[in-house]
Amino acid sequence: MKKNIRKQVRIGIIGGAKPNPESRKTAYETGRLIAEKQAVLVCGGLSGVMEAAARGHKEAGGVSIGILPGSSTKDANPYIDIPIATGLGYTRNSLVVMNSDVLIAIDGHYGTLSEIAYGFIQDKKVIGLGTWDINGILKADSPEQAVELALKPFFPLVR
Amino acid sequence: MKKNIRKQVRIGIIGGAKPNPESRKTAYETGRLIAEKQAVLVCGGLSGVMEAAARGHKEAGGVSIGILPGSSTKDANPYIDIPIATGLGYTRNSLVVMNSDVLIAIDGHYGTLSEIAYGFIQDKKVIGLGTWDINGILKADSPEQAVELALKPFFPLVR
Amino acid sequence: MKKNIRKQVRIGIIGGAKPNPESRKTAYETGRLIAEKQAVLVCGGLSGVMEAAARGHKEAGGVSIGILPGSSTKDANPYIDIPIATGLGYTRNSLVVMNSDVLIAIDGHYGTLSEIAYGFIQDKKVIGLGTWDINGILKADSPEQAVELALKPFFPLVR
Amino acid sequence: MKKNIRKQVRIGIIGGAKPNPESRKTAYETGRLIAEKQAVLVCGGLSGVMEAAARGHKEAGGVSIGILPGSSTKDANPYIDIPIATGLGYTRNSLVVMNSDVLIAIDGHYGTLSEIAYGFIQDKKVIGLGTWDINGILKADSPEQAVELALKPFFPLVR
Repeated sequence: MKKNIRKQVRIGIIGGAKPNPESRKTAYETGRLIAEKQAVLVCGGLSGVMEAAARGHKEAGGVSIGILPGSSTKDANPYIDIPIATGLGYTRNSLVVMNSDVLIAIDGHYGTLSEIAYGFIQDKKVIGLGTWDINGILKADSPEQAVELALKPFFPLVR
Repeated sequence: MKKNIRKQVRIGIIGGAKPNPESRKTAYETGRLIAEKQAVLVCGGLSGVMEAAARGHKEAGGVSIGILPGSSTKDANPYIDIPIATGLGYTRNSLVVMNSDVLIAIDGHYGTLSEIAYGFIQDKKVIGLGTWDINGILKADSPEQAVELALKPFFPLVR
Repeated sequence: MKKNIRKQVRIGIIGGAKPNPESRKTAYETGRLIAEKQAVLVCGGLSGVMEAAARGHKEAGGVSIGILPGSSTKDANPYIDIPIATGLGYTRNSLVVMNSDVLIAIDGHYGTLSEIAYGFIQDKKVIGLGTWDINGILKADSPEQAVELALKPFFPLVR
Repeated sequence: MKKNIRKQVRIGIIGGAKPNPESRKTAYETGRLIAEKQAVLVCGGLSGVMEAAARGHKEAGGVSIGILPGSSTKDANPYIDIPIATGLGYTRNSLVVMNSDVLIAIDGHYGTLSEIAYGFIQDKKVIGLGTWDINGILKADSPEQAVELALKPFFPLVR
């Protein structure tokens, strides 16, 4: 794993801290699939969609990065492998996007909306799974389709 | 002016860098009205809606704050009185909102969408003039109505 | 004042939150002189050296900008005219420097040291009044000399 | 490795982008020793001391995190495993420190000085190898001693 981690595609999962049970399940499943595809999971590192996705991802053997609002790496949920403290508060949402090659939005409230907006500001592909209906989002019907959309016709990754 | 500037309500104008002529005129007019109401204008300090609003505001005698993405205060449009450099790039959008008591969104693209989202994240009132249709925005039909909505039943300002 | 505020030189005062009485007096006097010279005072907006300088500056009729660590403009000391919230915590120290044309360091601990370092990173002139002994600082013996050094052979200010 | 990466101590290496050959060698050796001790290397991700340390660390099998000033993960030197983009410019220096449990400063100029200052602001242990002479730094005479000081009587790490 280690040898390739920098070259792996990074899929950012953005979504609410208080999702309903179905969105939580969707996030878990999406995280799991991302690990199976050998991609890195990036998220905000906290609870809800972020935690469910990181848990699914970790259980399938993936390595995840959590870009935290607080100034302590301890704040990350237990499934995050690489917690990154920023001390920026919600202003860090822009950095979650900056560190993702492509985004999957699941459920979510205004925080997620800010990240969707940053996705387009930063010219990232944004895939939606039951989230805000914003012009430009590619809608997916399932975690499988979302991850497929995230990885297929992918730009040549140079990092 | 000086004696009271800290106590004045700060109205943030958010909007696109490349508005159509009508939105530019709306921004100009809104900026002018904000000055007439003795309120401070806060914006992103650059071109388009930001510049038109700052120009209207300055021509009516107001004092404006521009929260800039770059690291030089020189980047501000010529109508900004207090340019603030951040060096944060678009990540500074959150700070435009943080320094406003209430927001008026005019036209705008994804940058404006991120600021609308931060408005709700930070529990600010967000008024819309021909902008994104996001749940929670108070729609106004004219600059007059927008500024009236921004200032009427206003929370007691403590700063 | 208003007409010229953008064109006025901005002198940043950096220094500790808990100075001894003498440093507090030095800060007060320096703030006062900055106002007399028609320059804007920039500081971190909180207590100690920042508050004493802002108080002296305000009592002499100046306009001051406080770049705050927190996310609320209410955090500023009562003598700040233009509080700017950043929500960046101590990471905002870089922005205090970024918004100053020249710096005067008074007393101070590690926070001040970080601002002195940013002064040199950002190619600003740094004047010291009883502060860290760092290579590159221009030492002054009095507030008068510090403000004189800050303003004399000054670069042509374009903003 | 993966199982434990979050629990590993993170040692931040701070130092100049243009070190002399000896400091480069010191950085390389320090990076190597950090990997041998099963610790994660954190640095600014760019050239000079950062690159030499990351190279030594990678050659000894370590995993490194680079907290970058720019907005692209591509900016990292080739030995960084986990590049983190911030888009904050030099303001990111505070985040390099925030993501380290303990710091080793090697050589360095004003950027390094700002990171040493943030080390003390954030209550981190700061070890010096031929760097600034700042009160509070624990001086080491060799990479071996620096890494030993970094890891011995270490606080119980909870993350």
